[in-house]
Amino acid sequence: MAIRRFSEKNLAREVLHRIRGTRNPRLKQVMASFIRHMHDFVREVKPTEEEWFRGIRFLTDTGHWCSGERQEFILMSDTLGVSMLVDAINHRSGGGATESTVLGPFHRRKAPLYPLGASISKHRGDGVPCRVTGTVRDRSGRPVAGAELDVWQAGADGFYDSQKGKAMNLRGIFRTDANGLFHFRCVRPEFYPVPHDGPVGRMLTATGRHPMRPPHLHFWITARGYKPLITHLFVKGGRYLDSDAVFGV
Amino acid sequence: MAIRRFSEKNLAREVLHRIRGTRNPRLKQVMASFIRHMHDFVREVKPTEEEWFRGIRFLTDTGHWCSGERQEFILMSDTLGVSMLVDAINHRSGGGATESTVLGPFHRRKAPLYPLGASISKHRGDGVPCRVTGTVRDRSGRPVAGAELDVWQAGADGFYDSQKGKAMNLRGIFRTDANGLFHFRCVRPEFYPVPHDGPVGRMLTATGRHPMRPPHLHFWITARGYKPLITHLFVKGGRYLDSDAVFGV
Repeated sequence: MAIRRFSEKNLAREVLHRIRGTRNPRLKQVMASFIRHMHDFVREVKPTEEEWFRGIRFLTDTGHWCSGERQEFILMSDTLGVSMLVDAINHRSGGGATESTVLGPFHRRKAPLYPLGASISKHRGDGVPCRVTGTVRDRSGRPVAGAELDVWQAGADGFYDSQKGKAMNLRGIFRTDANGLFHFRCVRPEFYPVPHDGPVGRMLTATGRHPMRPPHLHFWITARGYKPLITHLFVKGGRYLDSDAVFGV
Repeated sequence: MAIRRFSEKNLAREVLHRIRGTRNPRLKQVMASFIRHMHDFVREVKPTEEEWFRGIRFLTDTGHWCSGERQEFILMSDTLGVSMLVDAINHRSGGGATESTVLGPFHRRKAPLYPLGASISKHRGDGVPCRVTGTVRDRSGRPVAGAELDVWQAGADGFYDSQKGKAMNLRGIFRTDANGLFHFRCVRPEFYPVPHDGPVGRMLTATGRHPMRPPHLHFWITARGYKPLITHLFVKGGRYLDSDAVFGV
């Protein structure tokens, strides 16, 4: 019989050695980095076996909350700032361009195309009427004609249409005019919570955080010859602007 | 309307700032460390949005494989060396004591108590008969009388009894004699794979690894006045001794 020896120090090295045969070089790079950071984390916090098992249970629970309508791991990524970090890495805009944000779970394909000036709100109870005007410009400040703005928002009750059924409401597509101008009507955005009845909600509570997103309109702007831009417009002075639960501001 | 700015650099700092109100100081420490290492990992590998989503899907899939009989997140922890790292942190034995290992998923409570010399194998088809003898000693080398050894092993088919039904087989409890001696019969341990038909199995394959554990007997040794010890005995010259899929050797 034989016994070999691993220690806290050389275990990560041994795990890295084991994946040396990974064929996909990108996977090898990602796995190696993950293994190093994960072992660093564990060596730093020195979890008891009970704490380790709590972590296992939290991940398991998070997985079990994921379904066709609910993505609890994306919510975890959002609320830990990871989604916005990935967004920032992939959309380094630099000098003066509008900041980008993540698509989020509430965008829907094939929203209705409306003429400028139309309202995306179809029901009186959607919220306080509101008018939005603006201009799409390129980096050098020139207006972009014919740019498409795909707009969506939650109603005053804090829900998007897709959380309530299949009918489309509070979303639509507009095209800028020859001067790059757009204008449409909607309802005044109100703050609303991300889903917080699951493990991520428990994590937010345990770490002294609220689940709220500040009032905003979501935009996906495309124009021929330009990179698409997904962004938010936030209501000036709106609540939770400085503590957006998903770091999207 | 207002836009605030986060960058790759200051986002982790902002997330850490948000959890400043965490009441449980240990949770605060663990979460802060996790956030720092997770953001470091993401900044290092710079995932595309598609890669990020693959990660989300992998975690979700792993969660969905977890059930009453299967714990895929523990398997992931085992195969990335994290379980053994936690074990090493919590059971620093130091000078000369037998190395500890994790309990694993196959221990069962209330195995039958046998007299010394009995066999834990109840069926002729369990494997090649084998005899085990040894002495339990304390750190100073003195034999420990009346120590309890809870022993369990897989059969030659690579399965533990609990993977095949409720009946107990290939496990039992023995007590050392007045000289600290124990001896019992079992079957020769054979190598066997960890469950590899799920996401962790795919990860092993993609990183050029096999799912095998080298042939071993599992022991949980307890004695009044001593710390319990969970350990393995491995067959000298057995296959996979240098590439145990869960780093337990």
